[in-house]
Amino acid sequence: MKKLLIRISQQLLATEIYVGKALLKSSLIKDFFSLSKGSKIIIADQAVQDLYAAPLANQIGGQLLSIPRGESAKTLETAQYLLEALFKNGAGRDTTLIAIGGGATTDLVAFVASIYMRGVPLILIPTTLLSIVDASLGGKTAIDTPFGKNLIGTIYPPKAIFADLDTLQTLPETEWFNGLAEIWKLGLVYDAVLWQKSLKDFLKGEKDISLILKAMQGKIDIVQQDPREQSLRHILNFGHTIGHALEKVSRYEMPHGQAVALGCYAEAHLSMSLGYLSAADFEQIERAYSLFPLQLPKDYARPKLFEAMAHDKKKALGQIRTVLIEKIGCAIPFEGDYCQAVTPREWKQTLDWMEENYNHL
Amino acid sequence: MKKLLIRISQQLLATEIYVGKALLKSSLIKDFFSLSKGSKIIIADQAVQDLYAAPLANQIGGQLLSIPRGESAKTLETAQYLLEALFKNGAGRDTTLIAIGGGATTDLVAFVASIYMRGVPLILIPTTLLSIVDASLGGKTAIDTPFGKNLIGTIYPPKAIFADLDTLQTLPETEWFNGLAEIWKLGLVYDAVLWQKSLKDFLKGEKDISLILKAMQGKIDIVQQDPREQSLRHILNFGHTIGHALEKVSRYEMPHGQAVALGCYAEAHLSMSLGYLSAADFEQIERAYSLFPLQLPKDYARPKLFEAMAHDKKKALGQIRTVLIEKIGCAIPFEGDYCQAVTPREWKQTLDWMEENYNHL
Repeated sequence: MKKLLIRISQQLLATEIYVGKALLKSSLIKDFFSLSKGSKIIIADQAVQDLYAAPLANQIGGQLLSIPRGESAKTLETAQYLLEALFKNGAGRDTTLIAIGGGATTDLVAFVASIYMRGVPLILIPTTLLSIVDASLGGKTAIDTPFGKNLIGTIYPPKAIFADLDTLQTLPETEWFNGLAEIWKLGLVYDAVLWQKSLKDFLKGEKDISLILKAMQGKIDIVQQDPREQSLRHILNFGHTIGHALEKVSRYEMPHGQAVALGCYAEAHLSMSLGYLSAADFEQIERAYSLFPLQLPKDYARPKLFEAMAHDKKKALGQIRTVLIEKIGCAIPFEGDYCQAVTPREWKQTLDWMEENYNHL
Repeated sequence: MKKLLIRISQQLLATEIYVGKALLKSSLIKDFFSLSKGSKIIIADQAVQDLYAAPLANQIGGQLLSIPRGESAKTLETAQYLLEALFKNGAGRDTTLIAIGGGATTDLVAFVASIYMRGVPLILIPTTLLSIVDASLGGKTAIDTPFGKNLIGTIYPPKAIFADLDTLQTLPETEWFNGLAEIWKLGLVYDAVLWQKSLKDFLKGEKDISLILKAMQGKIDIVQQDPREQSLRHILNFGHTIGHALEKVSRYEMPHGQAVALGCYAEAHLSMSLGYLSAADFEQIERAYSLFPLQLPKDYARPKLFEAMAHDKKKALGQIRTVLIEKIGCAIPFEGDYCQAVTPREWKQTLDWMEENYNHL
């Protein structure tokens, strides 16, 4: 087991991160929770309820609430349902909320924890590769809206994260792809070694834990340098301008990882078409993403994509902005902004290419 | 004009506070807003829309949105309406929200600003005595729920507050009472001189600006010592355990100031009945509050009050906790907690007294 730490500011905002195997069955969990005096409420998505959440509730003596799994449940309605359940269960400011599940679940429960009585203690137990290496790290909470993904949320770091790697053993293969999409993204913008290693493992069919730890540490490094996403942290949005818009167009039926993978591939293409990325690097990227099972959503249409992109959070002065790379492992700083306005005309070549290659029809 | 400052932490969380006369007509406002590059959206309650908000929108070139006034509109539904209006107006992360109105309006808009795209720049322009001396100061945002008052919210300090004291000239007399209730509360728990001065002014019918400045400075001192309300800041909740419960029982028809006044009076009585406050001090308090036009809400019943108090945010380990005073100007520290569990049996004498004196029938 390895212990990592995020410190976003000197006051309160420190997250202890425990990563390892058989964590959920270890005495560590029980000891950890025996220290908190208030009541505990465990909120699980249906995918992990019987397997992990119910035994945990038993072990630490908490109450169990359940929500539907997946992105389509990450809504204000589910948040309202949870808030009401908390009131009805008499949860107070000293009640700890424990979220267990994938990224949609940890995002949503963290949002609820941040607004219930102006914030209650929060613990995250991510159970998918994507939520372990990305969603649960960095203090972002979110819900989706009809206008776009993650458009409502707060910055509210949990007190602790328990990432039990054994949970990955029950993960379907498509979920593994989804997590890899975020690892590859991190590789493309920040860490060429991670990119190479990740690709090599993938080709060999290996699932190496050291890759997961390296990806977590990379994200933590970036978040610590810019917790409020005012410059460097923007790079973690590579692939997400298109990615989030694709998810919205699909009405959140397209998994986040697949949208990010296609988004990264397309934004690498954009980086090349704008003259920043070499053809040789793009070719390497192409070889990697052609291994992914990617497809545009059923209802895809270019105007819908632009309409969704118009609500992107990186927008400034009304212009859509995107993260671009100059080589594998290196996002372009653009005077510290780490993103740049791209006009619809500049998007054209990339969208032509994407539609030609990935239209499902 | 005087400039005050809150610094809650070293990162971002600094609020510039401008207090003075004729601020809204001054070039200060125009100069201030000419510095921000993004779009501006002014959100006003109906009470001030024509008088202050529309001219301001004209002056600084912002868009105007309107919400109903008063506590009964401080709901998740109004927040949802605003969020949707922001999306529809294309508001981005660089859009500044400017709230203008009473405490309910500034609380609600601040909450919306804190969750829209994980936080957008926020400016508050309080236009009631209560919101100038209390609600707008200290970074608390809130909405009410069917379970109780301010139960959903965040800590999200505005970038600046403009308190134009000229707005108080159009304030109805009952609104002046409501603001005084918070000034008297601050006097009782923290500042005996403020209490005496406030009472003297009130008896003479004087409305002295120095009193307002002193009350603002007092609250700022407390908030700076304990921004996250973990100890000292609890004292600002004096009168609010009963006060919030009365508001809830009245379905938020009872004005906050009146509920706080009756709450302070009753919790002073409780402080006496528990043996902390002398009869002489209580007598002085009694003379003051008997000048207020106080009444229990129409639907008042003791079980309803307890039911509402059960959701109080100061609750710990399931017990209702209350701030108590040992003399005028001095809340009891209780080992740094500044509040203490009080059993229903201990409340009895005070509630008997309150019901006997203030039942509307």
